[in-house]
Amino acid sequence: MSDGAERLLGEIRFGPDGLVPAIAQQHDTGEILMMAWMNRDAVRLSLAEGRACYWSRARQTLWRKGETSGQVQHLRELRLDCDGDALLLLVDQQGVACHTGRRSCFFRAWRGADWATIAEPEIDPEILYPREDR
Amino acid sequence: MSDGAERLLGEIRFGPDGLVPAIAQQHDTGEILMMAWMNRDAVRLSLAEGRACYWSRARQTLWRKGETSGQVQHLRELRLDCDGDALLLLVDQQGVACHTGRRSCFFRAWRGADWATIAEPEIDPEILYPREDR
Repeated sequence: MSDGAERLLGEIRFGPDGLVPAIAQQHDTGEILMMAWMNRDAVRLSLAEGRACYWSRARQTLWRKGETSGQVQHLRELRLDCDGDALLLLVDQQGVACHTGRRSCFFRAWRGADWATIAEPEIDPEILYPREDR
Repeated sequence: MSDGAERLLGEIRFGPDGLVPAIAQQHDTGEILMMAWMNRDAVRLSLAEGRACYWSRARQTLWRKGETSGQVQHLRELRLDCDGDALLLLVDQQGVACHTGRRSCFFRAWRGADWATIAEPEIDPEILYPREDR
């Protein structure tokens, strides 16, 4: 591993499963777009390619955000927390972050008695993920 | 469990360890303050008391944020993501969120060759955590 990669990854405390939680925030508005997981390769690739790449726990594979939907996250800055066990990605989200077609995945808010949907889809998921790709 | 608690907790997908990641964001500025973990009791208590309560993985106990340091997070809104496996807490942070005395725990940014410290402590940690409480 190069010195740079050593310094980059050496400060990140990956969990026993080799993953670290990563928060994606729109760099200029501060909106939280989503939370996902990264392994070492996902961190390296995100920096090398300048766009967010995560580890899909469901599919057990690297997941270049937007590779199917086109909704790419251009990486503006990578931040690390005090304990080294959480990442914050400041990104420029192209289109929407959520697979439901909403800008943010956090579209449900607790309203005292139930969860309320506080945002509607901006894009039809059928357009984001054409049936043959599902 | 009451109907309300059933609706609240029933939509949250806690991991095999009974925990779900929780992001704390300052409600008006959008600043990401920290990421921590919550179990069912932490979610219930946060809503009941109107202030963030987490599960400390290090100490294996409920952790009412600010109980030692006084740096309480007043809960303004609880949000849930599309998959139900991540929480977003919109809070009003009293003082600082980080145990280092910084406003946010995400004070390190990758600068191409190394991690740079991009924020300085606002409060001496010795004041936040008097020696006898450490």
